[in-house]
Amino acid sequence: MPHHFRQQVRSKRFTGPTAGQCGEFAQANLTIIPGLYAEDFLRFCVRNPKACPLLGVGEPGQWNVPALGRDLDVCTDVPGYNVYREGVLCEQPDDIVDLWRDDLVVFAIGCSFSFEQMMARERIPLRHIDEGVNVPMYRTNIANQMAGPFGGQLVVSMRPMSGADAIRAIQITSRFPSVHGAPVHLSSPAALGIEDLMQPHYGDCVSIHEHEIPVFWACGVTPQSAIESARLPFAIAHRPGHMLMTDIPNSSLAVL
Amino acid sequence: MPHHFRQQVRSKRFTGPTAGQCGEFAQANLTIIPGLYAEDFLRFCVRNPKACPLLGVGEPGQWNVPALGRDLDVCTDVPGYNVYREGVLCEQPDDIVDLWRDDLVVFAIGCSFSFEQMMARERIPLRHIDEGVNVPMYRTNIANQMAGPFGGQLVVSMRPMSGADAIRAIQITSRFPSVHGAPVHLSSPAALGIEDLMQPHYGDCVSIHEHEIPVFWACGVTPQSAIESARLPFAIAHRPGHMLMTDIPNSSLAVL
Repeated sequence: MPHHFRQQVRSKRFTGPTAGQCGEFAQANLTIIPGLYAEDFLRFCVRNPKACPLLGVGEPGQWNVPALGRDLDVCTDVPGYNVYREGVLCEQPDDIVDLWRDDLVVFAIGCSFSFEQMMARERIPLRHIDEGVNVPMYRTNIANQMAGPFGGQLVVSMRPMSGADAIRAIQITSRFPSVHGAPVHLSSPAALGIEDLMQPHYGDCVSIHEHEIPVFWACGVTPQSAIESARLPFAIAHRPGHMLMTDIPNSSLAVL
Repeated sequence: MPHHFRQQVRSKRFTGPTAGQCGEFAQANLTIIPGLYAEDFLRFCVRNPKACPLLGVGEPGQWNVPALGRDLDVCTDVPGYNVYREGVLCEQPDDIVDLWRDDLVVFAIGCSFSFEQMMARERIPLRHIDEGVNVPMYRTNIANQMAGPFGGQLVVSMRPMSGADAIRAIQITSRFPSVHGAPVHLSSPAALGIEDLMQPHYGDCVSIHEHEIPVFWACGVTPQSAIESARLPFAIAHRPGHMLMTDIPNSSLAVL
């Protein structure tokens, strides 16, 4: 099923955000950078494990990364890409076939969409799925731990829910540290420097009902903040919410 | 150390709330009722496991309950008792030696004070301990599952904390279902029918700082609500916050 989904993406028949697709399988955030910066970026991931849990790393020039899936091609199998030059987002192509270089290294980072199916199974409403939009994401004022040129701020995804659902969601997601694990914060957005929940920096706005609180998870878009602050000459990432579908079963990622 | 603490209580040298005392050991809520109602009450505990996790049950007439502690005497080792007649709280004696009857059965129910030390170790502030008062407790509008004459409403204890601390507190307390486990709710008090956090029904008021949310745990005072609604001819309980110190190490209660 992930293999089939990737074929749909590759042929441009699927082009949207990927939340709710192939719910049994892990989706991945992508960071693709020149090998020159790979070691620094690896240390960045180790130092920021909530935002950057690594599901896989390719060899220099490797665009398939077999550990992530069969017949996978990172150049075509993501429904949208962000291309950065000198740390500035300058293109959003639908594939990166013409941009591929032999010195590029692929980093696949766990995505919180992995535990959404577990939440849905327990009847915890997921507003962005119910409203058919991309999950809202916000740049916070929390500085990442630096490594080489990589720094920037933590990016979080947000899901509104009742207090009781938030408690269960924390228990569920704590079992999955490799897809961001437990939330980093809940309730007060101001404590993260988020001024207006209705104005996400990435993704879409979702409604928040009475008696609901915002619950914030570390997000795999965080490396894009690090790419910007590092002013990397060249980097490619997924378009936020538009993930790479892998063959890794979510259930295999549970630590207990 | 619990043994020594019980001696202090027995000799009336310790008379206050017990939060923060002998932090390594479990404290217990007490419900003492005539054997005639014991089976109904056991079913009540089974049906309301968040509020009434049983640490121990005595034989009819047994006032020592060896499973709870060495040389323990439930008639003297609690710093304050509530005595109910026909479901009405009518006395608050310092011991129940003169009230003991051979048909009474002791139920010891886990207490959330057990996991407070684990929270304190991780630098999660506990406001009632910092302010030197009893933990605030509230009657909610959530009906207990009935068993025989026992019903009433869920009672909760409340600890204010930051969102980040609340997430960690949920992880910590989830490991200890026998002392109420994870919270039942957080944030909105109105969702539990609590009108004013500054007016707890039991215990004391504590301050809530900016960016903090109230986090609510099921409380072992819940049976006292059930005793009231059952209009039991006779029952004895601990005074809220004034617990029986047991010899059971808290660490032995962790389910993982």
